[in-house]
Amino acid sequence: MGQFPTNLAVAIDWLASFGKEPDGGITRTLYSQPWKEAQSALKGWMEEAGLLTNYDSIGNLFGRLTSPNHNAKTILIGSHVDTVKSGGRYDGAYGIIAGIMALDFLKKKYGQPAINLEVVSFCEEEGSRFPLALWGSGMMTGIYSFNDIVDIKDSEGISFETAMMAAGFGSPEYRVRKDIQTFIELHIEQGPTLEKVEKSIGIVKAIVGQKRFRITVKGESNHVGTTSMKWRRDALHGAVNMIHDLYESVKEYDEDLVTSVGQLFLEPNVPNVIPNHVQFTVDARHPNEYVLRSFCQKFTQMFQDHAKKLDLAIQVEMWHEVLPAQMDNGLNEIIQSICTRSTISCHWMNSGAGHDAQLFARVCPTTILFVPSQGGISHSPLEYTSTKDLETGLEILIQLLHQLAY
Amino acid sequence: MGQFPTNLAVAIDWLASFGKEPDGGITRTLYSQPWKEAQSALKGWMEEAGLLTNYDSIGNLFGRLTSPNHNAKTILIGSHVDTVKSGGRYDGAYGIIAGIMALDFLKKKYGQPAINLEVVSFCEEEGSRFPLALWGSGMMTGIYSFNDIVDIKDSEGISFETAMMAAGFGSPEYRVRKDIQTFIELHIEQGPTLEKVEKSIGIVKAIVGQKRFRITVKGESNHVGTTSMKWRRDALHGAVNMIHDLYESVKEYDEDLVTSVGQLFLEPNVPNVIPNHVQFTVDARHPNEYVLRSFCQKFTQMFQDHAKKLDLAIQVEMWHEVLPAQMDNGLNEIIQSICTRSTISCHWMNSGAGHDAQLFARVCPTTILFVPSQGGISHSPLEYTSTKDLETGLEILIQLLHQLAY
Repeated sequence: MGQFPTNLAVAIDWLASFGKEPDGGITRTLYSQPWKEAQSALKGWMEEAGLLTNYDSIGNLFGRLTSPNHNAKTILIGSHVDTVKSGGRYDGAYGIIAGIMALDFLKKKYGQPAINLEVVSFCEEEGSRFPLALWGSGMMTGIYSFNDIVDIKDSEGISFETAMMAAGFGSPEYRVRKDIQTFIELHIEQGPTLEKVEKSIGIVKAIVGQKRFRITVKGESNHVGTTSMKWRRDALHGAVNMIHDLYESVKEYDEDLVTSVGQLFLEPNVPNVIPNHVQFTVDARHPNEYVLRSFCQKFTQMFQDHAKKLDLAIQVEMWHEVLPAQMDNGLNEIIQSICTRSTISCHWMNSGAGHDAQLFARVCPTTILFVPSQGGISHSPLEYTSTKDLETGLEILIQLLHQLAY
Repeated sequence: MGQFPTNLAVAIDWLASFGKEPDGGITRTLYSQPWKEAQSALKGWMEEAGLLTNYDSIGNLFGRLTSPNHNAKTILIGSHVDTVKSGGRYDGAYGIIAGIMALDFLKKKYGQPAINLEVVSFCEEEGSRFPLALWGSGMMTGIYSFNDIVDIKDSEGISFETAMMAAGFGSPEYRVRKDIQTFIELHIEQGPTLEKVEKSIGIVKAIVGQKRFRITVKGESNHVGTTSMKWRRDALHGAVNMIHDLYESVKEYDEDLVTSVGQLFLEPNVPNVIPNHVQFTVDARHPNEYVLRSFCQKFTQMFQDHAKKLDLAIQVEMWHEVLPAQMDNGLNEIIQSICTRSTISCHWMNSGAGHDAQLFARVCPTTILFVPSQGGISHSPLEYTSTKDLETGLEILIQLLHQLAY
């Protein structure tokens, strides 16, 4: 193959060379120069592997292994080529590389499939350049449209449309594909579960739903020394009572529920003044929408009770919501049986992170497979998965596609 | 008196004209131009009132009504001329103005006193220009020395010594006065107590002790969605449990105990990442050192228990400590009897804020009297005390000095 990689470990290094930072991280944001170079290089590799390539009008890249049956539908395999700022070399990249290598292997060994097999390198998933995530899969599934990018700018003030045009994309028509019958994504876990339970493959039952809130608590600033405890309207005292009970109440739910307060701002934030203003975020996730909704209703009520008790004003705003996405149980049962047959250990789990697969799950049978992430670390130059684990994932993907398409 | 004020309300406006900001606040930081002009104007007024004036070598200004008895000791009355940035017009200023007016009145009505009466305009109390508070009273009482200002700079990099020299002070010798037998301060309350209990005069039993801590909690950052609750080492969860129990435990103590968390910093402080680092302050105050120490030991142990439970590292540092200062009960009893006689309502209380009187309490019988602060507001352009309340305070001071010195 000359200039193109011949094995998985080499391929990971090769793709990581596009957008490599001095700290070892990878920055390949949507429509940037390293992004263009990476897509173009992947296109070359796909062609070298004998796949029929094309871009859609927003920059998703496809490499197709065509069935001789002209009416055949398509199994789509892939992940996203973009990264967060100074992200890892496996997130997204692994799913594209494994897709190309699987199709290359299947073509060489078995020839043309009965169903089209197509690998996709999604243009965008992370939302790291523009405040919009899942752009590639959102357009492919018809869930997004060009209306969603109107007025969206990056941190330098460049509009989404300008950046897209400059990269050579953005024709105003987007044709949603009707031939996709199945979507399969292979991805690193980005969490510690597989490592902790010592399993090689994660079979994902669902991608969790998320609700993110911004809570604003307002009280009154006063001198710490001269204001008796009973006359205070301390916004931080209120916020602390709320967050304390938020964490306590999680214990009443099953283990799939996670919640976090990741951001908190205090005003005036000086040691000897009682805080009059606290703003904090709540991120809550669960694979079942009813459970998630009940939890959010519960803590919202609890927060309001705490505010009332301390004579504070409170505002609860939900600023982000993603519905849970159920992965296809039929596909998962096949993956389970392949693992059993191949004596590869696997673990049924949920995905706490979002993925392109969550949008495809709304339009066709979809699943996502995980391989372990060392230390659960992701979105960092320290992201790492052993070559052995990467190869195990590829092997399962090949067997799955063989079973489905031949 | 021509250019000098003839009544209390006019005098407050007059002194507030030195360092007046566009927002109505007063900024008169140590050794600044408005500070120099204010001291110089006060000196002129003292002289006009027939007081013998002088500066000490650091810029404290004195106006003396001398006893014919050459062996007489001195009763010192006064407060500080400096302000916080954009502070109020009563804080400090009222005590100096009332002192001058009291001595002027007593001289005119009763002539020379048996004990010297001396009003002081302390050069500095707030610590708002340099990170050192109570400079004027600290030097007068011999508790501070020039060693305390070595290496101290303001926010513009000007050293304490340079600023002092530029204002015309700073001779390297400081003679601690041996003749001060009593110190009396008249001050606005800077808190809401007198307003809430509807009394005119606050008789201060003690100025509280303060201990200030910096608490650092360290955990581990992880992805909010992919990290199960049971595997987290969430620094904010730990900090919230600590602060929650801090506020709960206050309830087990008497009403004089106050505590606050005024400052809190979170890292990395983004909504979807578990915080790995929280730093917060604890300010604890009580008039009894033993009670205060027991409370601080208790919450420190509690914090460490919480850290252990959640597998977090913790560091507890005390960075500021002020011992409680007991006001003289003999003086307070006289003030009480004067109030009773004059049918002026009074309230025995503690001072939660620091004052020059707290250092004098270590060297001689000392007390501080409060008048109400509207809404408890201080260190703000909104600081306000009615002329009636200011006059009541002056009247009590005059009667007290008459009883003590004639």
